[in-house]
Amino acid sequence: MLRSHTCGELNAKHINEEVTLAGWVHARRDHGEIIFIDIRDAYGITQLVFDPKDSRDIHKEAHELKSEYVIRINGLVRRRPSGTDNPKLPTGDIEIVVRGLTVLNPSLTPPFEINQSAVVSDETRLKYRYIDLRKPYMQENIRLRHRINSIFRNFLEKRHFVEIETPFLTKSTPEGARDYLVPSRLNMGKFYALPQSPQLFKQILMVSGFDRYFQIVRCFRDEDLRKDRQPEFTQLDVEMSFIDEDDIFELSEGLIRGVFKNIPNIEMPTPFPRIKHREAMERFGTDKPDTRFGMEIVNLTDALKETKFKIFKNTLEKGGGIYAINAKGCAKYSLSKINGLIDKAKEYGAEGLAYFKCENAKLVSNIDKFFGDAEKESMRKTALAEDGDLMLIVAQKREIALGVLGSLRLDIARDRGMIDENKHSCLWVTDFPLFAYNEEDKRWVSEHHPFTACAEEDIRFLEDNKRYGAIRARSYDLVINGIEIASGSIRIHTREMQERIFKIIGLNDEEANKRFGFLLEAFKYGAPPHGGIAFGLDRFATIFINSNTIRDVIAFPKTQKAVCLMTDAPSDVDDSQLKELHIRKVT
Amino acid sequence: MLRSHTCGELNAKHINEEVTLAGWVHARRDHGEIIFIDIRDAYGITQLVFDPKDSRDIHKEAHELKSEYVIRINGLVRRRPSGTDNPKLPTGDIEIVVRGLTVLNPSLTPPFEINQSAVVSDETRLKYRYIDLRKPYMQENIRLRHRINSIFRNFLEKRHFVEIETPFLTKSTPEGARDYLVPSRLNMGKFYALPQSPQLFKQILMVSGFDRYFQIVRCFRDEDLRKDRQPEFTQLDVEMSFIDEDDIFELSEGLIRGVFKNIPNIEMPTPFPRIKHREAMERFGTDKPDTRFGMEIVNLTDALKETKFKIFKNTLEKGGGIYAINAKGCAKYSLSKINGLIDKAKEYGAEGLAYFKCENAKLVSNIDKFFGDAEKESMRKTALAEDGDLMLIVAQKREIALGVLGSLRLDIARDRGMIDENKHSCLWVTDFPLFAYNEEDKRWVSEHHPFTACAEEDIRFLEDNKRYGAIRARSYDLVINGIEIASGSIRIHTREMQERIFKIIGLNDEEANKRFGFLLEAFKYGAPPHGGIAFGLDRFATIFINSNTIRDVIAFPKTQKAVCLMTDAPSDVDDSQLKELHIRKVT
Repeated sequence: MLRSHTCGELNAKHINEEVTLAGWVHARRDHGEIIFIDIRDAYGITQLVFDPKDSRDIHKEAHELKSEYVIRINGLVRRRPSGTDNPKLPTGDIEIVVRGLTVLNPSLTPPFEINQSAVVSDETRLKYRYIDLRKPYMQENIRLRHRINSIFRNFLEKRHFVEIETPFLTKSTPEGARDYLVPSRLNMGKFYALPQSPQLFKQILMVSGFDRYFQIVRCFRDEDLRKDRQPEFTQLDVEMSFIDEDDIFELSEGLIRGVFKNIPNIEMPTPFPRIKHREAMERFGTDKPDTRFGMEIVNLTDALKETKFKIFKNTLEKGGGIYAINAKGCAKYSLSKINGLIDKAKEYGAEGLAYFKCENAKLVSNIDKFFGDAEKESMRKTALAEDGDLMLIVAQKREIALGVLGSLRLDIARDRGMIDENKHSCLWVTDFPLFAYNEEDKRWVSEHHPFTACAEEDIRFLEDNKRYGAIRARSYDLVINGIEIASGSIRIHTREMQERIFKIIGLNDEEANKRFGFLLEAFKYGAPPHGGIAFGLDRFATIFINSNTIRDVIAFPKTQKAVCLMTDAPSDVDDSQLKELHIRKVT
Repeated sequence: MLRSHTCGELNAKHINEEVTLAGWVHARRDHGEIIFIDIRDAYGITQLVFDPKDSRDIHKEAHELKSEYVIRINGLVRRRPSGTDNPKLPTGDIEIVVRGLTVLNPSLTPPFEINQSAVVSDETRLKYRYIDLRKPYMQENIRLRHRINSIFRNFLEKRHFVEIETPFLTKSTPEGARDYLVPSRLNMGKFYALPQSPQLFKQILMVSGFDRYFQIVRCFRDEDLRKDRQPEFTQLDVEMSFIDEDDIFELSEGLIRGVFKNIPNIEMPTPFPRIKHREAMERFGTDKPDTRFGMEIVNLTDALKETKFKIFKNTLEKGGGIYAINAKGCAKYSLSKINGLIDKAKEYGAEGLAYFKCENAKLVSNIDKFFGDAEKESMRKTALAEDGDLMLIVAQKREIALGVLGSLRLDIARDRGMIDENKHSCLWVTDFPLFAYNEEDKRWVSEHHPFTACAEEDIRFLEDNKRYGAIRARSYDLVINGIEIASGSIRIHTREMQERIFKIIGLNDEEANKRFGFLLEAFKYGAPPHGGIAFGLDRFATIFINSNTIRDVIAFPKTQKAVCLMTDAPSDVDDSQLKELHIRKVT
């Protein structure tokens, strides 16, 4: 070892000991002749003293030290002079009188300072990631992430789960997102795909009798990256046999409770509330509601069923609905602020946004003449609007109206500081639809994935293609603070049912066998009932840091163009490499 | 939960309890009217009793049950009738009188039986991996592997190591093995590479100040697969700052000790013996010696320096050497067996293999007339040959002769049962050469990788290209039972030294910057001295199982053609997928 102690462990107990430390020059202060240097390593900071009275040579060398030089020193631990101790630092009672100094590696002036407050562009942070990761904030984030993984692993191991590694060079089954492909050199013209998730392998492991599987595993999706998505991401993947939804909920709640208990020391009450997908959409306009605040959506369709206001009337005639949120205390919003909301609403897909202010227990508006007093009173009562409130109304196709209001609800809550960031809301969303109709391809597709079981009571609807949209899946999402943290389902475990579902989503027998033949085959040999869940670990970790970007919990993230600015991946490769892989570039 | 207990936990304490079990029909025995069924799950086996006297209907259903049907039963736990208990089974004191039976999923007759003794081809095992993994032997292997990982992780966490995930979509740096490439859709004409190891990222993490990193991580090499290699493999990757070789040895010995202590309950003595690469080659003819037995190579060059035997004489004149092993007790080998050894020797690269039998304290042979008595006695003494022994001699270029004898040594030891499989030998091999000369490309290449530091005393040889071959690396391998289990080195941490090494292996500045510019750049900003090691986990796990193929500790391995027989990966993909990736197949 090049050191006897780390820079974080010395205290009054070590006084008069001769020690050796190694680390980075963190800060330097020259007080007259005496030079103070804070030496930093992964564990903390210790104050070094270079006094020309002790050694003129070493003092001279210390003069040359600059920020981020890597040094090794030995010296004597002594108590800091009275009044100069630093109670904020674990090592704040002591300092080291340096007797020997070696520069292990010098450093140029870094492109930015190692403290969080410095404003640095994302590009610079990513290019010089090795400097960025030296920041205490980033060090903490990466260590936090490790602790979360460790809590998860210990919890699952105690419950007899087995971590099993599944392959990364797998088969392309282009259902869902786009695959990353890997050309095979040994099998000309063939390709592997990087896994979007270990879904099929974990199901196969259940068929193999492993009973309780987990894996913390990298997954890959070649998507057009929206803000804060990464081409590779990590999930905690879990699968169990002989269980139903309640077993998954209980296990997951234990996992989440454990992290909240051990990281921010919060007792998260269980069981988590559950809400059906349909209800989530109606009350919050989203399948991942943030329930840390109210402002729920109300349905005005009934209150306005006789409306004479033409736009609303037309909507109702076309089978649409009229929905509103009540923005408490927002009647004071300026016209330009309200116009901003109207623009936002349109961006979210609304044809328009009507609004009423509540004054003297009455709704007033630029369109209030089109509404009778009874109607307005009924609207007001439905929305529980009081003086000073602002009602925002969307009349449109149900799904669109709810979605628009769900988004506005979040915007207003953020704008008004209605979200207590110290509060955390955990919520199960259940009973998702099994299928969604893809208008473009004119076919039914799986809402989750085609291995999801359908609700027992809805199996009969599989006979009738008019009822497909009404079939509920045995799927569930765990939503924390309005973020989808985990998603899973009870799976299909019989060949017959799996084939039926494949047919409905338009996979004929040949296609189904080509892609998923091994799963159908496996189901012939005694597949147990099973189900599971997968937690998005990048996203989950951000709940515990002062940032909402997953880039701050990933050591080496990529940009939105899926580029690593540090290494310059992806890069050009030699033609000889491509030749061996039997491929050619098409440009 | 679909069960109240697992099939492994019921015992005499549960007698008279009503229980629900779920699992597979493992075995069925019909005793007259009564049907006995062993139900199996991941935790054990329980005996079920179907008596027509209890329920005629259920008994009838039980008649239909076949091997590997998935069933759920409820019934009463009772003590097995006296004399029918099975002390070998944890549940052997009890049985369950079945009162309710549900078939959760039927099964066809599996392609092979779920017991290890059945002889099944590798192809069939891999194609029906879900059946193969049901074997108790395979279940144990996969669980063992998980336990090893868990022991490693706990050990490292206690020592403040942080597990940090490094990217899988990285940059191609074709030094070493061939990369698996991944075409980038978003960056036309560019490619990612799957990592051969996280080497550069872990070094960057040291530059970032993480101090102690580890990761259990998948790595990829697109090699022509030799027997028992896999295109993807898992390593425990470790890196530390401010350390030297002894720190790595101590840490690694703790890791290995922990596994031997917890898995087969063996106290592995530490420190492990260390041997320099040169000595390993001279004594064992290999850089991964199996030291569980002797039969070390002896050097006869001195004893035969005046030899008149023409072949030997020619060899010595060309600068070669004469080496031998003494195969104890093998003088009784038949001529055909000896001819077999000669063939083997030629296969290993020998031009010939001479032999002497020791009889009446004398060496006798078909060539003994070419040797004087004093010479023969000197040879005999050097090899410590006694009556009944067989000396095998190779006279050739040093490296070749040693290699041939090293291989023969192993063959004979295996043939003669000289290796005690219950014994384990751990050994550090150190001081590898830094460079090797590649005759084909007429250039020096890195023996380990170009980031390896060279021995302090040998730095001066970097000035003189005639001395390159003599430069020792600060690298080390951990060899267990003759298998290379881990490999690592102290790394270069200054830009100047790294550039010097790149130049020696023929990378000009432009090439070096293109491939490794980010590392050279990082070294400018205060890189600490660091080093590390990586353990091959697939190979390590095989030490603890009854097999020497890594396929038996990997859930879903590939064949030597890098094919997954279960899923048929790699496979054809749609042309539309390739088009999006800007590539075309060349066939």
